[in-house]
Amino acid sequence: MSDLCPLPTGFQAAGIRCGIKRDATKLDLSLFVSDRPASVAGVFTQNRVCGAPVKVSRERVPRGTGRALVINSGNSNACTGDRGIEDAHWMTAQVASLLGCDAEDVAVCSTGIIGHFLPRLTLEAGFPQVVEQLAATSEAFHNAARGIMTTDTFAKQATRTIDVDGKTIRVSAAAKGAAMIAPNMATMLGVIMTDAELTPADADEMLRHAVNRSFNCISVEGHTSTSDSVLLFANGAAGVGPLDGAAKVALQTAIDEVAIEMAQAIIRDAEGAEHFVTIDVVGARTREEAATIAKAIANGPLIKTAITGNDPNWGRIISAAGYCGVDLKEEDMTLRLNGFEIYRDGAPTAHDAATVSASMRDNRDVLIRLELKLGDANIRFWTCDLTAEYVRLNSEYST
Amino acid sequence: MSDLCPLPTGFQAAGIRCGIKRDATKLDLSLFVSDRPASVAGVFTQNRVCGAPVKVSRERVPRGTGRALVINSGNSNACTGDRGIEDAHWMTAQVASLLGCDAEDVAVCSTGIIGHFLPRLTLEAGFPQVVEQLAATSEAFHNAARGIMTTDTFAKQATRTIDVDGKTIRVSAAAKGAAMIAPNMATMLGVIMTDAELTPADADEMLRHAVNRSFNCISVEGHTSTSDSVLLFANGAAGVGPLDGAAKVALQTAIDEVAIEMAQAIIRDAEGAEHFVTIDVVGARTREEAATIAKAIANGPLIKTAITGNDPNWGRIISAAGYCGVDLKEEDMTLRLNGFEIYRDGAPTAHDAATVSASMRDNRDVLIRLELKLGDANIRFWTCDLTAEYVRLNSEYST
Repeated sequence: MSDLCPLPTGFQAAGIRCGIKRDATKLDLSLFVSDRPASVAGVFTQNRVCGAPVKVSRERVPRGTGRALVINSGNSNACTGDRGIEDAHWMTAQVASLLGCDAEDVAVCSTGIIGHFLPRLTLEAGFPQVVEQLAATSEAFHNAARGIMTTDTFAKQATRTIDVDGKTIRVSAAAKGAAMIAPNMATMLGVIMTDAELTPADADEMLRHAVNRSFNCISVEGHTSTSDSVLLFANGAAGVGPLDGAAKVALQTAIDEVAIEMAQAIIRDAEGAEHFVTIDVVGARTREEAATIAKAIANGPLIKTAITGNDPNWGRIISAAGYCGVDLKEEDMTLRLNGFEIYRDGAPTAHDAATVSASMRDNRDVLIRLELKLGDANIRFWTCDLTAEYVRLNSEYST
Repeated sequence: MSDLCPLPTGFQAAGIRCGIKRDATKLDLSLFVSDRPASVAGVFTQNRVCGAPVKVSRERVPRGTGRALVINSGNSNACTGDRGIEDAHWMTAQVASLLGCDAEDVAVCSTGIIGHFLPRLTLEAGFPQVVEQLAATSEAFHNAARGIMTTDTFAKQATRTIDVDGKTIRVSAAAKGAAMIAPNMATMLGVIMTDAELTPADADEMLRHAVNRSFNCISVEGHTSTSDSVLLFANGAAGVGPLDGAAKVALQTAIDEVAIEMAQAIIRDAEGAEHFVTIDVVGARTREEAATIAKAIANGPLIKTAITGNDPNWGRIISAAGYCGVDLKEEDMTLRLNGFEIYRDGAPTAHDAATVSASMRDNRDVLIRLELKLGDANIRFWTCDLTAEYVRLNSEYST
């Protein structure tokens, strides 16, 4: 994560405070703009209750091209009925008229409290200001990343470059997370921009590839938000032309890497988290079964609290695998915690619990590795622990 | 819940301290005995990883008759491999030889830490003592209820009577809970005893009926334990003979009621809980769909923490219904919190959040009522909130 994260060629960004949030030190309106039509792809929440901006953006993305993404924080415009839909349309129309493009070329995301109507007057005053602040600088991009934060404690950005035919292609991303984070997706907003040239179909395929290895492999507490959205803009401004072969693979890797870096940053910044937990499930029949097991471990409050207490309470992990619905037996499982073998083939292994506990206390990062004997499918999943601070934050966050 | 909860005719019970638990003030070995062969039914955890006692008792219950149930707390004898199975068999054999019955007539449960071998010497010294303490008194029954507790703060017992042909039939139950509580089942142990005469088939049917309305309708944190067991003993000692018609219905009601009272007591005594939450989901297509929605609400940490904070954060409830996998739309939902209508047909209703919050602050009991328009299936489900104290208890509970 860099404070000086550049934008790809042909992109501008801005983030300002228009006044949706109570805290006058917080930014709450961001804009990402390509100076030319870009191929657009999007992945959205699978929650059947979804915010108005999700409905509007989900309709527009299949057109395959777009110019801009406007995001406000502090209000998710979710569970707001027909007026919410009108408000989301209105946001894109306002931005489009200032940028001189069609409203259909503007996607929209909102994140924050559910069930409150957007403050139109506040936003209306903000749009000209955010457009005026648009710039291609790292500082402008950083402000845009700040403007989409809710309870995040730091702005999340990442960038990668690849060289093709002596020219540089850049992929840059911004995201927010903090809580209500679970696969498919979380209140998790992300924007990935690249100056590579991609067809809409390729953009869609490459975004899904990245999301399935990143944002869909994290969970804070298993609550799939109403507002999750990740969008990819590819504007071709690097001047390299369509990619294929090794160059296309390298671009996919770059997109995967910024997505994974964003997803990990969301977990590292999860509300109240004291441990960053990597869960490797290996030897499952299918990737889906591996994911089911990983999610049961990631979302188990008894496991999360044990990690908070630096307690290698492997029984809670083994039993979570047992109740998640995947057909397995305890004899199928071998468990390693921070590299220490704790359990093998259905029975505990001789190990010094104090040593394992010390390795958890002394490291923010915890590695849970569950080995099965069922097949050759694997997954790597990330989560955090559950602390009293998480409870405090979420019991005091008021409607 | 009564401190003076009588046993049905023909039953004796006892609870003693044999020394499995560290805390010298705690009882940890209990015995429930019928003075004649009783019809037996059992319902056990659906976790694929299950304790040795579950495996042993699950094999024996289908025989349909039994004499006794021995339960130790402080050690669950789960994830203990072949030696765990031998230990569970040994426990029943020891008790059987002292009672003068077959080992197959003794069922066994264990609850406590996972993955440690049972202390045979400690138990061996305890068996003669617990048999010696057997009595038909309320005090002996209360001690037996104490001896199965883990982190429970109070013993859980219930009793009902029905009159048939001028004679009294009694149903009495004891249970333990506290955490790792989720439907199907929880580390949740329960024993229900009645002096009614039942065939094994009727006992099984009536137990399942009760469990589906009680122990399978509660969740603390969604973690299905390895050791859940509920057993029903019906010994016919009331001398009424086989029941049918209205008398049989009355007996089912009595069994349902003691099971529900136990299940509610488990939630009221959940680790760290400050609120007792009843979730009514009405108007679903099927009872299974209603249960899926209720469980998503019950197990959502963001909802549980909002309740801890007396925050009527209905957006978290509506969005949990949205992500649980049931096919529904936000326009299908109407939500009431403590009787206040908060949300109707997809949009928030005008309500005074401060008033609703005050009703949550001033009452330990919270009622969430989610009305759908999809069908006529309902469920009533119980859960608790998620407090910093739960985190403290579960991060400090050490292996």
